[in-house]
Amino acid sequence: MTDAEFLVPPEDELLLIPGPTPVPRALRLAAARPLINHRGPKFTSMYRQIEAGLRPLFGTENGTILIFPASGTGVMESAIVNLFSPGDRVVVGVMGEFGHRFAEIARAFGLQVEELAVPWGTAITPELLRSYLASHDPASIAGVILTQNETSTGVTLDLATLGPQVKEFGLLLVVDAVSAFGGIPMQMDAWGVDVVVTASQKALMCPPGLGLVAVSQSAWAAVEKAKLPRYYWDFRAARKFGERGETPYTPAVSLWFALKEALALINATGLDATYASHRRRAAMVRAGLRALGLELLVKDERIASPTVTAVLVPAGVDGSKVLARLRDEKKVVAAGGQGQLKGKIWRFAHMGAIDEASLLRALNALEEILREEGYTTVPTGTAAKAAQEAAATAD
Amino acid sequence: MTDAEFLVPPEDELLLIPGPTPVPRALRLAAARPLINHRGPKFTSMYRQIEAGLRPLFGTENGTILIFPASGTGVMESAIVNLFSPGDRVVVGVMGEFGHRFAEIARAFGLQVEELAVPWGTAITPELLRSYLASHDPASIAGVILTQNETSTGVTLDLATLGPQVKEFGLLLVVDAVSAFGGIPMQMDAWGVDVVVTASQKALMCPPGLGLVAVSQSAWAAVEKAKLPRYYWDFRAARKFGERGETPYTPAVSLWFALKEALALINATGLDATYASHRRRAAMVRAGLRALGLELLVKDERIASPTVTAVLVPAGVDGSKVLARLRDEKKVVAAGGQGQLKGKIWRFAHMGAIDEASLLRALNALEEILREEGYTTVPTGTAAKAAQEAAATAD
Repeated sequence: MTDAEFLVPPEDELLLIPGPTPVPRALRLAAARPLINHRGPKFTSMYRQIEAGLRPLFGTENGTILIFPASGTGVMESAIVNLFSPGDRVVVGVMGEFGHRFAEIARAFGLQVEELAVPWGTAITPELLRSYLASHDPASIAGVILTQNETSTGVTLDLATLGPQVKEFGLLLVVDAVSAFGGIPMQMDAWGVDVVVTASQKALMCPPGLGLVAVSQSAWAAVEKAKLPRYYWDFRAARKFGERGETPYTPAVSLWFALKEALALINATGLDATYASHRRRAAMVRAGLRALGLELLVKDERIASPTVTAVLVPAGVDGSKVLARLRDEKKVVAAGGQGQLKGKIWRFAHMGAIDEASLLRALNALEEILREEGYTTVPTGTAAKAAQEAAATAD
Repeated sequence: MTDAEFLVPPEDELLLIPGPTPVPRALRLAAARPLINHRGPKFTSMYRQIEAGLRPLFGTENGTILIFPASGTGVMESAIVNLFSPGDRVVVGVMGEFGHRFAEIARAFGLQVEELAVPWGTAITPELLRSYLASHDPASIAGVILTQNETSTGVTLDLATLGPQVKEFGLLLVVDAVSAFGGIPMQMDAWGVDVVVTASQKALMCPPGLGLVAVSQSAWAAVEKAKLPRYYWDFRAARKFGERGETPYTPAVSLWFALKEALALINATGLDATYASHRRRAAMVRAGLRALGLELLVKDERIASPTVTAVLVPAGVDGSKVLARLRDEKKVVAAGGQGQLKGKIWRFAHMGAIDEASLLRALNALEEILREEGYTTVPTGTAAKAAQEAAATAD
């Protein structure tokens, strides 16, 4: 897969919000193919190919992969209702809006939520998690819920360390990988993750509408035991139909067409190269933003997200106006902040099909607007130059 | 909208299952457009256009229209969790697999379900419903749930009579309009329907993945009172975001593009003409099947569905073999039976973009296969001729 296959044409609007991300033309055309019977052999064959294609991304040999017509929030809910019972105590890591959302969903379903919260822009560390778990009776905790990549802040967790820690205490681990999956490694089996939930419209480069779930073999006991009511999200029904390559209810077939192509693209590139490309693009964006004198929200490079970067709106600059000018004058659509960061940050995604040329276009556009807004006097091309230098030295 | 715009090219597989139905090329290409920010002005503008376009199809001036990334089953569940509390007693009309499914969902969420069941292939009559409601204390019933068009049998309810009856008793009325919507009139306001749920992949001609809901003004009191846990499906969150032309969670944007085009197509044809076209196509299929000597599942023309027709597999014919031959030799994909009708019927959809030429193609194909299978000796073109005669005399 060359960068050109991913290129967003310069005349197109460049979508840099952290999902939906730009969908490559080949994927959009795949999604435009005539529909097929979701109870026939063509669908079953596609089901098997997608399942096989997703397995290395989830990092699981024997986990069960399930796909729902849903957004990411839908499959977050699916994890809650399939694993827990009313009154269960869960520990939810909260480092931003999406950790907060998972806690809210758990509360909506009558769980007792213990929030393990850290300041937005920082990560839940292995030390923090260990000290929490060591000071509580594991038998009183039904599960731990973590956000692999917090979209609202651009922080990525060290799941390779955190996952085995949770397992040491014999606890169920649920991971929201919505804005990580396909851009940041996931090793369910190796790290001891029981349920991973994710969605199609981030690093998977597809249109939104598919919620993806993987359930470890050992999580099925919890699914059987859980007492929360469920029907649409019932993992047991999805597994039963999945065994014959079908879904219990009508799948979003055209989005499956796109997903199949996305997995072919990722496979052609190679997973390691795909992850490296995400790290390289993240390094470009961070370097470009720093070269403009901007302050990144995430100070610690080791937890800086490979898929999305947040930067503080500098004092004296109207953050909304800059976003509107980027959109209206430069056709570059970035995101603002959510929750407590509303109005305080800009966010730029660099995942999926957002290629390096597009990132340079975005940095040039931001530089020009910030110059016109009187914030900077750096020479033209400063941000892009720093980004290119960072790309050249990235791992 | 001419028939030609709907035409499934003869070289394409002809999808005659009752959803997903064939998606016209213009809609598929719309869905292939580059993605947009779902938190920006373009999306909001599309939201308003779709809302306005759906209003006449729902038949509501002031009802709230909500769209979820989901299949039809998902929005069926959404109606249950938003309107009811554990232990509530609901009356569910069951005339086939989908009435059965609604009852199952209600049971899964702890409701007491009273099934008002009739033999598959017949309809719940106003007399039956009245006699049930008159013999029970209305205060003991939290709501009535009906299937407007039972996809598994091809039976359509007379909601213009049933709806006001439910209202006479002061009860909440929920209608599954999944395989009716866009092909059979719905008049929420006039008929007293409180919540209508439907989906994109039937008469709306779109790919699957959108669940549509309309909530009457008077149903909101029930939504506030309901105690079942909910988050993803919460109508209150959807209404709140809808007020500013957004959805709470990432919408299936590319499917919204298709829906907007679908509504433009329907609007260009006119709603009355669209419904008349469905009745005409249904008459064609029934006449064609009868001309082959086949027996329709639904004997009473007054309740025969305008969107899907079921026909009995005749004695001595291998139903599965005929479906497989239709698919493999004629590229005509029809459906078998579900639940208690598995193996006993074939079903042919004639909704949405399934045009008259495609129906003739299907009847010709079926006639030829049935001749080869030794079931019939009618002259070539018998079924198609009967269908064309029926079209000429349809209302």
